[in-house]
Amino acid sequence: MPFPDLIQPELGAYRSAVEMPADFAAFWEATIAEARAIGGAVSIVPADTTLKAVEAFDVTFPGFGGHPIKGWLVLPAVRSGRLPLLVQYVGYGGGRGFPHEQLHWAASGYAYFRMDTRGQGSGWSTGATADPVGTTPSIPGVMTKGILDKQDYYYRRVFTDAVRAIDMLVAQEFVDAERIAVCGGSQGGGIALAAAGIDGRIRAVMPDVPFLCDYPRAVQKAGRDPYLEIVRFLAQHRDKKAKVFETLGYFDGVNFARQAKAAALFSVAVMDDVCPPSTVYGAFNAYAGADKSIEEYEFNNHEGGQAFQDRAQMLWLARRFS
Amino acid sequence: MPFPDLIQPELGAYRSAVEMPADFAAFWEATIAEARAIGGAVSIVPADTTLKAVEAFDVTFPGFGGHPIKGWLVLPAVRSGRLPLLVQYVGYGGGRGFPHEQLHWAASGYAYFRMDTRGQGSGWSTGATADPVGTTPSIPGVMTKGILDKQDYYYRRVFTDAVRAIDMLVAQEFVDAERIAVCGGSQGGGIALAAAGIDGRIRAVMPDVPFLCDYPRAVQKAGRDPYLEIVRFLAQHRDKKAKVFETLGYFDGVNFARQAKAAALFSVAVMDDVCPPSTVYGAFNAYAGADKSIEEYEFNNHEGGQAFQDRAQMLWLARRFS
Amino acid sequence: MPFPDLIQPELGAYRSAVEMPADFAAFWEATIAEARAIGGAVSIVPADTTLKAVEAFDVTFPGFGGHPIKGWLVLPAVRSGRLPLLVQYVGYGGGRGFPHEQLHWAASGYAYFRMDTRGQGSGWSTGATADPVGTTPSIPGVMTKGILDKQDYYYRRVFTDAVRAIDMLVAQEFVDAERIAVCGGSQGGGIALAAAGIDGRIRAVMPDVPFLCDYPRAVQKAGRDPYLEIVRFLAQHRDKKAKVFETLGYFDGVNFARQAKAAALFSVAVMDDVCPPSTVYGAFNAYAGADKSIEEYEFNNHEGGQAFQDRAQMLWLARRFS
Amino acid sequence: MPFPDLIQPELGAYRSAVEMPADFAAFWEATIAEARAIGGAVSIVPADTTLKAVEAFDVTFPGFGGHPIKGWLVLPAVRSGRLPLLVQYVGYGGGRGFPHEQLHWAASGYAYFRMDTRGQGSGWSTGATADPVGTTPSIPGVMTKGILDKQDYYYRRVFTDAVRAIDMLVAQEFVDAERIAVCGGSQGGGIALAAAGIDGRIRAVMPDVPFLCDYPRAVQKAGRDPYLEIVRFLAQHRDKKAKVFETLGYFDGVNFARQAKAAALFSVAVMDDVCPPSTVYGAFNAYAGADKSIEEYEFNNHEGGQAFQDRAQMLWLARRFS
Amino acid sequence: MPFPDLIQPELGAYRSAVEMPADFAAFWEATIAEARAIGGAVSIVPADTTLKAVEAFDVTFPGFGGHPIKGWLVLPAVRSGRLPLLVQYVGYGGGRGFPHEQLHWAASGYAYFRMDTRGQGSGWSTGATADPVGTTPSIPGVMTKGILDKQDYYYRRVFTDAVRAIDMLVAQEFVDAERIAVCGGSQGGGIALAAAGIDGRIRAVMPDVPFLCDYPRAVQKAGRDPYLEIVRFLAQHRDKKAKVFETLGYFDGVNFARQAKAAALFSVAVMDDVCPPSTVYGAFNAYAGADKSIEEYEFNNHEGGQAFQDRAQMLWLARRFS
Amino acid sequence: MPFPDLIQPELGAYRSAVEMPADFAAFWEATIAEARAIGGAVSIVPADTTLKAVEAFDVTFPGFGGHPIKGWLVLPAVRSGRLPLLVQYVGYGGGRGFPHEQLHWAASGYAYFRMDTRGQGSGWSTGATADPVGTTPSIPGVMTKGILDKQDYYYRRVFTDAVRAIDMLVAQEFVDAERIAVCGGSQGGGIALAAAGIDGRIRAVMPDVPFLCDYPRAVQKAGRDPYLEIVRFLAQHRDKKAKVFETLGYFDGVNFARQAKAAALFSVAVMDDVCPPSTVYGAFNAYAGADKSIEEYEFNNHEGGQAFQDRAQMLWLARRFS
Repeated sequence: MPFPDLIQPELGAYRSAVEMPADFAAFWEATIAEARAIGGAVSIVPADTTLKAVEAFDVTFPGFGGHPIKGWLVLPAVRSGRLPLLVQYVGYGGGRGFPHEQLHWAASGYAYFRMDTRGQGSGWSTGATADPVGTTPSIPGVMTKGILDKQDYYYRRVFTDAVRAIDMLVAQEFVDAERIAVCGGSQGGGIALAAAGIDGRIRAVMPDVPFLCDYPRAVQKAGRDPYLEIVRFLAQHRDKKAKVFETLGYFDGVNFARQAKAAALFSVAVMDDVCPPSTVYGAFNAYAGADKSIEEYEFNNHEGGQAFQDRAQMLWLARRFS
Repeated sequence: MPFPDLIQPELGAYRSAVEMPADFAAFWEATIAEARAIGGAVSIVPADTTLKAVEAFDVTFPGFGGHPIKGWLVLPAVRSGRLPLLVQYVGYGGGRGFPHEQLHWAASGYAYFRMDTRGQGSGWSTGATADPVGTTPSIPGVMTKGILDKQDYYYRRVFTDAVRAIDMLVAQEFVDAERIAVCGGSQGGGIALAAAGIDGRIRAVMPDVPFLCDYPRAVQKAGRDPYLEIVRFLAQHRDKKAKVFETLGYFDGVNFARQAKAAALFSVAVMDDVCPPSTVYGAFNAYAGADKSIEEYEFNNHEGGQAFQDRAQMLWLARRFS
Repeated sequence: MPFPDLIQPELGAYRSAVEMPADFAAFWEATIAEARAIGGAVSIVPADTTLKAVEAFDVTFPGFGGHPIKGWLVLPAVRSGRLPLLVQYVGYGGGRGFPHEQLHWAASGYAYFRMDTRGQGSGWSTGATADPVGTTPSIPGVMTKGILDKQDYYYRRVFTDAVRAIDMLVAQEFVDAERIAVCGGSQGGGIALAAAGIDGRIRAVMPDVPFLCDYPRAVQKAGRDPYLEIVRFLAQHRDKKAKVFETLGYFDGVNFARQAKAAALFSVAVMDDVCPPSTVYGAFNAYAGADKSIEEYEFNNHEGGQAFQDRAQMLWLARRFS
Repeated sequence: MPFPDLIQPELGAYRSAVEMPADFAAFWEATIAEARAIGGAVSIVPADTTLKAVEAFDVTFPGFGGHPIKGWLVLPAVRSGRLPLLVQYVGYGGGRGFPHEQLHWAASGYAYFRMDTRGQGSGWSTGATADPVGTTPSIPGVMTKGILDKQDYYYRRVFTDAVRAIDMLVAQEFVDAERIAVCGGSQGGGIALAAAGIDGRIRAVMPDVPFLCDYPRAVQKAGRDPYLEIVRFLAQHRDKKAKVFETLGYFDGVNFARQAKAAALFSVAVMDDVCPPSTVYGAFNAYAGADKSIEEYEFNNHEGGQAFQDRAQMLWLARRFS
Repeated sequence: MPFPDLIQPELGAYRSAVEMPADFAAFWEATIAEARAIGGAVSIVPADTTLKAVEAFDVTFPGFGGHPIKGWLVLPAVRSGRLPLLVQYVGYGGGRGFPHEQLHWAASGYAYFRMDTRGQGSGWSTGATADPVGTTPSIPGVMTKGILDKQDYYYRRVFTDAVRAIDMLVAQEFVDAERIAVCGGSQGGGIALAAAGIDGRIRAVMPDVPFLCDYPRAVQKAGRDPYLEIVRFLAQHRDKKAKVFETLGYFDGVNFARQAKAAALFSVAVMDDVCPPSTVYGAFNAYAGADKSIEEYEFNNHEGGQAFQDRAQMLWLARRFS
Repeated sequence: MPFPDLIQPELGAYRSAVEMPADFAAFWEATIAEARAIGGAVSIVPADTTLKAVEAFDVTFPGFGGHPIKGWLVLPAVRSGRLPLLVQYVGYGGGRGFPHEQLHWAASGYAYFRMDTRGQGSGWSTGATADPVGTTPSIPGVMTKGILDKQDYYYRRVFTDAVRAIDMLVAQEFVDAERIAVCGGSQGGGIALAAAGIDGRIRAVMPDVPFLCDYPRAVQKAGRDPYLEIVRFLAQHRDKKAKVFETLGYFDGVNFARQAKAAALFSVAVMDDVCPPSTVYGAFNAYAGADKSIEEYEFNNHEGGQAFQDRAQMLWLARRFS
């Protein structure tokens, strides 16, 4: 497949034209405050595994609306003092999976938490978290659930869960609140970017081929789902374009980037037709934090850098948190 | 494409092995009673169209949980006395669309009602009805929404809506309660069959290439969505097969067929890889009513008989309701 | 799929470079005159249906070469005086189908005629009209039948049939010759545009995602059949490009548009890879009539506006013919 | 792709159930007699090439209806006495191409004639022969042209052309009428088989992965065009199955095989999803001639044996004609 | 997609008809002896990572022909005494990747070694090991490299590498030679099975959706590469079938299974069209060891059980090696 | 499919930016000298065919490293004096096939030699020549075999074979060393261009839709294999881009073109997504010889001009060699 989007040098020069809603910060402040006011119970239970070098825990915490959200917490078996924290959010359709997966962060000395995504967890790994909120007419998938009203949009709940996970974790005695990092690939990268844009406690963010950025551009350039869920919705709801993009403005990674201050390591894949590279540069170039860099994978599609990027992240974060 | 399933004479001889839950009838009796007890408001408002030979109305009625369900009602402009009623349910992903579509029933003298399907209405025609109930982890689409609990399964709400639509319509002065028919293609045919299996007021049912029949066979033979949503769910939730099929037993067209008594005109397409023809024969051969027949389209895939079948339905129903 | 052609604002600014043959008008004048000179018999027979609110007739009339052409005529059952006329031409591969299809025009008070397309009528609906003229070597489909000689090209016959249908209809007592409209989707839109470019009796034309426009551009931008039939023909007949495009100049919707004066309502789909949107704008921007407008469906492929466009057409035409 | 049809040993044991029309022989006798009665002019003109070891001629001869049919005749430059004749018919969609193609027969000492197929010659090689006969509604391609009437079916004309080619060639002084062979791949193989079934002058026939055999089986097993043209026709013309197969009975290679007496070398490809191998065995097992054999290519799709089969044919025919 | 192969209960009852060459054991005995006689150098160097809970080493050892083969060795950071050993072989096209991947075995207390596959390591993860042996004409991929001579076949070298890896590891002071297990998915499972069939030191083998089993069946049932490399080879080399399958008999997992005695945990996916499930049962049912079981994933394609199977393996092996 | 690359007039104006390594000529001089120094045996044996007008020989000659390379030599049966020589190289994946294929050159009076390609000959025709050199990790196919070192790259061996074929042929008494031409399609065209760039004895070169040109552009524009083998290699070996393109500079048709002086007839297909047309113009516009022309096939994909181009070549070469 030829390159589906801009290539260098035009790619790096791309600037997103996404508009920032005037009440963007206020919307999110109110949303988080509302969730915190509702509160809810936390449960941290040892998981049943054969693992010895690390310890795994099955966690439940209150997210948006106080709804119970699941996650796996994995700690080094040998530890002392407060640990740096790494929270990972999960890609589209997946769930938290099993605690024995993705052990490289805990094995490197981090308190590692992988958060489930509500209502997903059936596409390529399993989840255990419901989204107890219904929907207006929508296209299969979550991209258009409640898309006609920013208060009702699906990702309002997910991004709130992401911040509430940090609320829960910083309250634990093994976490060093001065060393909080978030990461994720694709949707997980989009959630990480949103969390960094909302929550100032986050010191480092590593969005890997992030999704949920620069929607107006994304729907023009994506060649595959899930951005195309929005296209298919608009293909039927031919009279709803303005409303849809009004809502999406409150959930656009470009706008979160404009607010974020944490150190940032992005990655982008130039052949990516799921998360077109210009949309990633749209967020990266808008990113407000001073300590930012981006790894570029020229000949990769949405798989991006994979283990190469994991290694880059481990080295980059070690330089900042050691 | 070669034939994807059995062909004649094996096809016509196929009998489904689906089990009937002991409390099947009780489950549905309780479900409908619960919905009726909740009740809700009905609204019938003239629609704004250029139509002259027929009159169209925008209808809202209370479905499962009292949730508001939409539909279009179209009546002959010139009418006298009570009319035979034809209720149509809609195929997967679609919605009620516009009142100027599908006018052949009203133009033939029927009170015609096309019911919206909650939460869908974005795939190939537009709907206006929300499904205000959330979901556990599920595959995109509605097939696995709440599939681990029969009380929570999506189609429990939809099939209830289908019966509650008739409750609303028989209360209108223009409807002849002795001449009630239901029809639909694909999912619409599955809903029609469910309605006929639950509601004894229905005198004629015309399931056209019906979906939602003989799930254990369907997941083995279907070559395309939406049955494959269930396959993909089980591909991840590898430990949930028994639970999934326990739930589906309460929603299987074969079981509704075993309870139905209305006159029935089925159709089946022998090259159908969406609703495999054996699953349709599974329901047809189980159908309890004595007046039953089936139109077979040998060289068609899921489009089935289309206008040929519309014509066959109009003639068949005229012979019974004139 | 990303947008396959120009997007706004470049799209709306596109002007076709198609050349107008010097004898274009003369060619069509002579062609129609020749068909009228041959003449032939007209037959209008009541159709056998269950319809009550409308009356349907099976029509045969003489087209190009006096060949018998079929169509369905549908009239409101309750009518008085002369009716406005709406003639619909059919999309590629289809036929006139059944009289109970597409009743919204007759139900809105129009004399409605759906013309069969000679030799097609097997692809997605059935027809009943032969094309009794043979062909030189050609690619499957009709796009290259006789393409090396403008006198022998397939669409010379079809466009003549379209005008001869109006000849037949204006002779009927129920038709108001001052209120003649033509419409059609895709190929039907191309035929409607041709008819409006040839026949000054037509007062309104509604080409919906029209095909058969701006061939030199179309063969560069189309991603799917049937424009690609021409590409495949030229892929073998590598030495025939000049001849092919010389012929096509006499059949290009851009050239018909340059001659047409009727009020016009176009539609275009920006994601259309069958009839690339620039080719539609090529015809629209060239359209000579003063009363012209275009509905744009940004996120649709070749399905275009469907019931949305039907509704728009009904309202637009009602404002001009009431 | 797995094997799309029967495999050995079931494959070799397959017997076709095609019925032989009572007037099959009479139909073809009358058809050929009619064409001969019409007659027409023959033209044999040297072709302009750089070839030296062979001589090429551009030939026109009268086929069905006296229509002019083209072909290339290639003779060894050094020759003496009458030559064995090899007539090749061409695969679906192709034409006679250029005289410098396929020189192995002429280079081996045969008078070689490659006949154009009327109205095709645009799909993968070019032709120069028109089919001046029109068509009723049909699916793109030639498979359904005139299929509702055996007198009007396309292949009635083509098979007649094939026999008339031999009429023309046996009249030439360089042809040895005792050594006439016909061959062809796919459609060409079907035509060769038809010619051998009609014309007793043919002493050897080499149908290579032949098409046009055992239609009732073929439409069930073929995975790709062109047999599927018939399926698509019947998918729309849902009420025409009996008529279609009645016509096809007069054009089925199985029936021609039942009449043929020439020595025969078939080939079959076991993975062929264009011409399913059981349909080839259907013809082979029905073949009446005593000297028959078949080359089987187990792991090939429709490409069959290609140069391996050319070599096998050259050796097989040399043993019979030397 | 429907099930591509047998389903239960036929599936579990399938027995392979693969023949065992008389000199099978002798062939492998000689092959391994030859490699051991050549010998070569071993290098074990600490890898540069951020990992703390485990220690990683970059290993080079002599494989077939003494060629240098790479692998990653990962040990628990906290360890005492000899550790159970788990050797993993890699799937088709992949390489050893990075040491921070797949840490669950080392984190569970095993000495874990992931062996590179010579000449691959470019398809979905990177490798660092050359295959310094050339090839006769072959299809892209390794399946047909040297396939016309069992001495020259590619997998003769790979399977020898697999055994030589164990030679190298049992010589290390941290390995408990009484607790050696091998595993792998797809090609890795095929290699593991071969190793268990050759090397009696192996006490446990866990072939996960194994490849390289029951070739005669596999080439009939596989729907995707890499088995189809063999089909494509035979599609061209139409005269080499006997030779190809003669060679493959020495490399068939069914024959290795007939020789293996280790405890075995297989997995199989019933929708697998890469490694058809009957070929896996072909090996499983032939497996000679008494302690054998199989996990079946009914609704999975070649991805099989993934993390579910990892968990099952960890539990199963812990019960045998603790 | 729309045009995948530049169209006219931009296409013809395209200039490649490929860099010429300073030691390009020296590298090839040394490579050829090394092969000549090794030498090896030549064998020319009559082939067993039925051909009479031409004589065919099975040839083996020493290529790179003295490795035995096969080819078919075909001479006119009637000949006198020294003949012009035409050497053809074969497309990707193919082999020399059979001597009875492609007889138009020998039939036109040329000594015709078709060289096998080492290690290929399994994809669409059969070969008989091994590549006895192994490989580092590589993607299936030959494009990345040894790509990290110019001395080890696969095409170093193939291009040397191409020149060594001419060494062998000019030594034969029937060859006129003043009339040597080379040709080939796709990979064959790339090899022909390389031979013409290395070997001054070649007087005419006819690269038909040549492959192996302008790699940096090709990997950006190709839509299908085999250029994408390089993309997939770099998708995994994310850190090897510089090394890969350093190697490819020594094997780029653009650089060979800059050195070549023979008369040249190129062809290019504007819809070619295997060998993008700009890469062909990149070589053509860089071609140093004064007598150069190019045939352009506007509506063809990689099949290019086929028999049209064969005819053009025969005429073009006859004008130069007669």
